[in-house]
Amino acid sequence: MADKKPFAGVLSPVLTPFKKDLTPDSGRFVSHCRWLLEQGATGLAVFGTTSEANSLSVKERIELLEALITDDIDPKLLMPGTGCCALTDSVRLTAHAVRNGCGGVLMLPPFYYKGVSDDGLFANIAEVIERVGDGRLRIYLYHFPQMAVLSYSLDLVERLIKAYPTIVVGVKDSSGDWSNTEAMLKRFPGFDVFPGSEVFLLPALRGGGAGCITATANVNAAMVRNLYDNWQSPQADALQDEITALRKAIQGYPMIPALKQIIAHYRNDAAWATVRPPLVRLSEAQARSLIADLEQKKFALAA
Amino acid sequence: MADKKPFAGVLSPVLTPFKKDLTPDSGRFVSHCRWLLEQGATGLAVFGTTSEANSLSVKERIELLEALITDDIDPKLLMPGTGCCALTDSVRLTAHAVRNGCGGVLMLPPFYYKGVSDDGLFANIAEVIERVGDGRLRIYLYHFPQMAVLSYSLDLVERLIKAYPTIVVGVKDSSGDWSNTEAMLKRFPGFDVFPGSEVFLLPALRGGGAGCITATANVNAAMVRNLYDNWQSPQADALQDEITALRKAIQGYPMIPALKQIIAHYRNDAAWATVRPPLVRLSEAQARSLIADLEQKKFALAA
Repeated sequence: MADKKPFAGVLSPVLTPFKKDLTPDSGRFVSHCRWLLEQGATGLAVFGTTSEANSLSVKERIELLEALITDDIDPKLLMPGTGCCALTDSVRLTAHAVRNGCGGVLMLPPFYYKGVSDDGLFANIAEVIERVGDGRLRIYLYHFPQMAVLSYSLDLVERLIKAYPTIVVGVKDSSGDWSNTEAMLKRFPGFDVFPGSEVFLLPALRGGGAGCITATANVNAAMVRNLYDNWQSPQADALQDEITALRKAIQGYPMIPALKQIIAHYRNDAAWATVRPPLVRLSEAQARSLIADLEQKKFALAA
Repeated sequence: MADKKPFAGVLSPVLTPFKKDLTPDSGRFVSHCRWLLEQGATGLAVFGTTSEANSLSVKERIELLEALITDDIDPKLLMPGTGCCALTDSVRLTAHAVRNGCGGVLMLPPFYYKGVSDDGLFANIAEVIERVGDGRLRIYLYHFPQMAVLSYSLDLVERLIKAYPTIVVGVKDSSGDWSNTEAMLKRFPGFDVFPGSEVFLLPALRGGGAGCITATANVNAAMVRNLYDNWQSPQADALQDEITALRKAIQGYPMIPALKQIIAHYRNDAAWATVRPPLVRLSEAQARSLIADLEQKKFALAA
């Protein structure tokens, strides 16, 4: 039997590199995952929003996940995104992840239909769980109302935890709304709450949170991890301020293209800047301005 | 070479029936498509919002489309929805539709990422067109901001028409905003504008529109078709009022479960009420109330 709580600390929702023809670049993907773990990421939330996962087919996700495992990345460290619009896709990806020993999965709600009820969302997640039918499954709910529009209300989270206490074990709260994160921390003791930004890492840990799952870890895992390791030290607030400042500098640009541009720049590897449409890479001017903004900042990739 | 404008009149975005185990019921699907054509539907917009298409995997859509064609439904009458979040899925479904002789495709924008630019949306659609690389392709843009959130702005529509004048030939405007439909009719002469509701059929035809693509056609194709055939007759406004009244009665309920419930009731075929989560079937009370609301109405399925 797998651990009830397979993840804690700093997870990176891994960027997906593409080749010139826009096919996923599994070589650069595996290398980047390995580097993130070396930098101190405690887990890899592959196929999240930051990963452009919803611009990938189910088959492309499966092949990338298998590339990681074939290359000896420990599947227990992986939390692939497996929540899709189509029930059958969510079942297929979730079953594939469990079968391959992944520590957990990150579950977006089925996000096309708007105005659906909590009953409908509950039925969808329950159907995925029942169809996968594997006690090793660990689900982290992916709450991101700005992107998915549909959201996991507190009542829905409670209902899912009560129905599947050993399976629905945590949440990534990407709402950016601290009051929501705080409400979950208070209402669901023992449930693993990860804010979706390192900006909330210290308050989350002080409130009993499990860590954070943050896009910026793609370029700054080491410093975010350092705060996680030292959150009870006298330096904690200063460490939080430092990583928050970097986040805020990057947030002035479209997040995913900006992170890819930063990697392209600091690794001197232009291919990394490629995104799949509908995303658009930064303009030359944006790219120059972003790198200039970062010049006075200290962060892991630049170190 | 295919016609530049393969569709006009009344298209039905076909409901997708499911079996008890929630797999698509291709037998009922084919029968329903055949009945819709007999009722006067001039085309079938399979795999739209009404079809719960985004709750289906790519493979499930391909198999259902092939079931229709195998059963001798003329593919020229088919306008499958092929716009997905993932570029590779959109390419696969679009290429499959063209290869199988479909009259056109209905193209949702890639709807997961919010706040993307017109440049990004243009690049996505352009990439699909270039990759499919088939002069027979006819694209109808699917504008449904309430559901997709992303939308086809008038400027983006213009840019797509200019870049691909023989391929981007029409739009389904499901905004429910007549001023937007009207703006498209005026700005893009020769471009086939289909409002997404029969409520706007008569004004659309008077403004040069091509017809309508409407969910309610699943139960009322014949009467909507009758208005289309007689829109210049003295009875046109009365016919419009009649079909509008039915639409408004149904719109008081969640549209997709309501339409399925109506079919289940009038065909005495309870299986038809099944929906895939996250949608939820009508409650017993809602179902009774809906059927009572319809008792005084005249419409094709009840006839």
